[in-house]
Amino acid sequence: MRQSTYLLPTLREAPAEAETISHRLMLRAGFIRQLAAGIYTYLPLGWRVLRKVESIVREEMDRAGAQEILMPAMQPAELWQESGRYQVYGPELIRLHDRHEREFALGPTHEEVVTTLVRNEIRSYRKLPINLYQIQTKFRDERRPRFGLLRGREFLMKDAYSFDLDWEGLDKSYWAMYDAYTRIFTRCGLNFRAVEADAGAIGGEGGTHEFMALADIGEDTIATCTQCEYAANLEKAEAGPGVSEYREVAVGEHEKFHTPNIRTIEQLTESLGVSADRFIKTLIYLADGQPVAVLVRGDHDANEVKVKNYLGATNVELADPETTRQVTGAPVGFAGPVGLKIPVLVDREVASMQAGIAGANEQDYHLRNVRPGRDFPVEKTGDFRNVLEGDRCPRCSGTLKFYRGIEVGHVFKLGTKYSEKLGAKYLDANGKEQVMIMGCYGIGVSRVLSAIVEQSHDDNGMIWPVAVAPFHVHLIPVSVKDEAQIKVAEELYDRLRQTGVEVLMDDRDERPGVKFKDSDLTGIPIRLTVGKGAGEGRVEYKERAQSESMDLSIEEAMDRIVKLVKESK
Amino acid sequence: MRQSTYLLPTLREAPAEAETISHRLMLRAGFIRQLAAGIYTYLPLGWRVLRKVESIVREEMDRAGAQEILMPAMQPAELWQESGRYQVYGPELIRLHDRHEREFALGPTHEEVVTTLVRNEIRSYRKLPINLYQIQTKFRDERRPRFGLLRGREFLMKDAYSFDLDWEGLDKSYWAMYDAYTRIFTRCGLNFRAVEADAGAIGGEGGTHEFMALADIGEDTIATCTQCEYAANLEKAEAGPGVSEYREVAVGEHEKFHTPNIRTIEQLTESLGVSADRFIKTLIYLADGQPVAVLVRGDHDANEVKVKNYLGATNVELADPETTRQVTGAPVGFAGPVGLKIPVLVDREVASMQAGIAGANEQDYHLRNVRPGRDFPVEKTGDFRNVLEGDRCPRCSGTLKFYRGIEVGHVFKLGTKYSEKLGAKYLDANGKEQVMIMGCYGIGVSRVLSAIVEQSHDDNGMIWPVAVAPFHVHLIPVSVKDEAQIKVAEELYDRLRQTGVEVLMDDRDERPGVKFKDSDLTGIPIRLTVGKGAGEGRVEYKERAQSESMDLSIEEAMDRIVKLVKESK
Repeated sequence: MRQSTYLLPTLREAPAEAETISHRLMLRAGFIRQLAAGIYTYLPLGWRVLRKVESIVREEMDRAGAQEILMPAMQPAELWQESGRYQVYGPELIRLHDRHEREFALGPTHEEVVTTLVRNEIRSYRKLPINLYQIQTKFRDERRPRFGLLRGREFLMKDAYSFDLDWEGLDKSYWAMYDAYTRIFTRCGLNFRAVEADAGAIGGEGGTHEFMALADIGEDTIATCTQCEYAANLEKAEAGPGVSEYREVAVGEHEKFHTPNIRTIEQLTESLGVSADRFIKTLIYLADGQPVAVLVRGDHDANEVKVKNYLGATNVELADPETTRQVTGAPVGFAGPVGLKIPVLVDREVASMQAGIAGANEQDYHLRNVRPGRDFPVEKTGDFRNVLEGDRCPRCSGTLKFYRGIEVGHVFKLGTKYSEKLGAKYLDANGKEQVMIMGCYGIGVSRVLSAIVEQSHDDNGMIWPVAVAPFHVHLIPVSVKDEAQIKVAEELYDRLRQTGVEVLMDDRDERPGVKFKDSDLTGIPIRLTVGKGAGEGRVEYKERAQSESMDLSIEEAMDRIVKLVKESK
Repeated sequence: MRQSTYLLPTLREAPAEAETISHRLMLRAGFIRQLAAGIYTYLPLGWRVLRKVESIVREEMDRAGAQEILMPAMQPAELWQESGRYQVYGPELIRLHDRHEREFALGPTHEEVVTTLVRNEIRSYRKLPINLYQIQTKFRDERRPRFGLLRGREFLMKDAYSFDLDWEGLDKSYWAMYDAYTRIFTRCGLNFRAVEADAGAIGGEGGTHEFMALADIGEDTIATCTQCEYAANLEKAEAGPGVSEYREVAVGEHEKFHTPNIRTIEQLTESLGVSADRFIKTLIYLADGQPVAVLVRGDHDANEVKVKNYLGATNVELADPETTRQVTGAPVGFAGPVGLKIPVLVDREVASMQAGIAGANEQDYHLRNVRPGRDFPVEKTGDFRNVLEGDRCPRCSGTLKFYRGIEVGHVFKLGTKYSEKLGAKYLDANGKEQVMIMGCYGIGVSRVLSAIVEQSHDDNGMIWPVAVAPFHVHLIPVSVKDEAQIKVAEELYDRLRQTGVEVLMDDRDERPGVKFKDSDLTGIPIRLTVGKGAGEGRVEYKERAQSESMDLSIEEAMDRIVKLVKESK
């Protein structure tokens, strides 16, 4: 491709609203342009990278035995009503009416459509298992679209759905996808972790993993073990055994003391000169509308997902101040476990305390010497807190380290949630009807682009891995007015393309500085400069990721490029 | 791919609502399934064909120098208001609101988006011409979706938009696309004609061609010359010189005669025993709300597009009975040109009549001896009728023949319609601002599938051209319990795939009759049967389009297949 006629509009500055590096660089390098909030046009360079990622995804999905189909974006509302998600999904689901006033949804995901398809087309156990996938534009009306392609309202996704005879089958399908995802993200050059995650609102029994690209701007926190393979997102990460020494201390009766206007653990530690782990923090939640108290140590945060799962609730949220006052008899900041008339969930670390300081359920008072089991019941105990960096690993003797991650993929055991509701059943070898066991598997294809750039860039621009680069080689004749340079450049352009190397030739009549700057910005992995040495058959070879360039003969450069491109496939 | 685990659900009967051959066969052969009216899921076989067509389109667009991008489906309503199409487009445009009550349209086409993009990114004449295209899902809320993929509400389209410095540039861009389209449809194996068409509501000056796949179910009529290259759709086809001899006849004064309840040409010819070409048919239209009369010969039909273009009107429709009564003083069926107070458009064939029979503008009366120029003004004269099969060609001495056609592609000179309204301007070499000259170019990618099947099938099923076939070879071991057959089949399966041949192996434990029937239905172009001769290395080779099969050695069959597949590329 010749740059002089190519739509590659680079910018010196990114628009002010672009907050992240990947968003800024993709705008500046002319990869994408915004049409509306969270809605982007892919310009030629961005589109080429998207296609590369798409191809890798397709190859690995096919290799794993999945079958590609294409389902519609417009989905009849009836299907979503049948699955029960039409109301639950909320304003993220884009709804519309056709000219006959029939209701449709723009698919953010396709469980309903694919389950109905399989229900209608597959009846015999002989046709199972099957894994159907598509690479398709999805719609999700995000409350706050941002970060460019990371959180968009219209985006490209690969979604796959497996249908198995039984749970053992699902297990095989699930791990086949897990392996495929590992290959996909590895080929995309991402630094990622597959982390255990919570099943969340999408529902269903069994396991789920999120594939997280490590990046500081990631919206999720991942806890990984420094010694073993354990990795989980913060919602899910299990607390290991406590690290604090067991302290056998004689403990007297609990006693009230005056703490005027002291409501937070920080204020308490400061005014009392006692470390935070000596406190019992009491949080009042509403679980499906019913108040419940959760006790965690003063230096810990409660984990609402764990609380929700323990209670089997569908919705858990912090109680409003008025409810807290009704339940505890005191304003927020003075709640404590002693004398509470509501269920009390005790985190394991609290249960193992000899005694602690807690709120007195009375304004401006706390209690010291509050002893678990004596002063309040320790019946509902479990892991109700977020892990902390440095905590013991739940699997080994290592400790946990935290990262931020961008979710680029998700594998999920759905079980019978959809097959039951939508009636996807098969006849087994004995002619008996059985419910299919499902899994679903997503990759945010457009999001992968952002994740790669977040991980792979420097001050001058992006640095694309060869396997997903928009072009392999940026061929730059220093002066388009120099005949020798143009002759060599044109020759190289033809020869490289004949060997399957993708070349962008900067044939613009611009100063070399401008060309090099743009080249660094777009991040094409190999820069081949044809300059003064052209007459002697010498060119300058430079890899974007390296700071040094090399003076090579044309043949040496050719060999090096062909080899690098071949290795990337 | 192994058929035993492949989603290829064939049906004995198609659903009753499938009216056309292509729709029936694609349902029966498991290529598509309907999700809602005009909205389809592509199953694996249908998806593979769609991808093949998409690849051909992409290759030829790239070869023609167009640049691929991807624009969003969700388009802000403001853009459509800016271009003036938001109201005009009517109920076919699917509209929706986001969570902030902002209005969006689901793109049926992308003139607004692409023109805005180019307006923002291109300022200099040096960056023009440019042709941007995408292959993308489009939405159009058809009043009557039908014929499967032929008239859907969600469909795959290739749309391209060229931006040129001037009209000469547009001409070059236009014909480059014309040539690319010719290559695309030829490679898809279609029997098609590029026909002159009317510019229609999309607007703009200059030429437009429709690419029509010939098929009896086509919704459009095409007139083609039996001698020269002339071809146009019926709306556009020009009437050649009249074929009737000029008849110099003495004509007396016009006179009224009684024709009780005789309102149509058919009734008149029957009751008077006079041929239809002796009548002057008078039709009252409303052109942008203003009444106008159009006169055509009794054996001709008026052409509303020609009337519209002559008047420069945006909307022309037959007047309602009440308007007709007000204008003519008589009920519908008795209108005539004599004494009319509204503009009268006279078709050339009427103008050249000596005299004719016309309505008297009085209930139950007609006039004979009505003479053009004497009894009514012949000032606004032109070509206002549809041509008839057998008419003289407007270009040569040949005659016109009619075909039915499916529109699969469309090239269109837009001119400045959008660039003017949306401000897509560039600075020329003298620094002067100029409006870009645009063209647009569409291909109904999913529609091409239907067109191919309409043209290429027999009583047993589809017959896919090798270049777009879902698989090249259908490999059928007659009995999966026969070890020799399975051994040979597996070997062939591996060897063929290694040479790049796409193979579907029917490894189902089914009777041969069932396998052959399904094979014919799916229309895979080469059937390779491994039967009793397997032990001696013999296989049965049969092309779907041929009735005869051949007994070949494995090597002979391999050679033949590899050659055929290679030639198709």
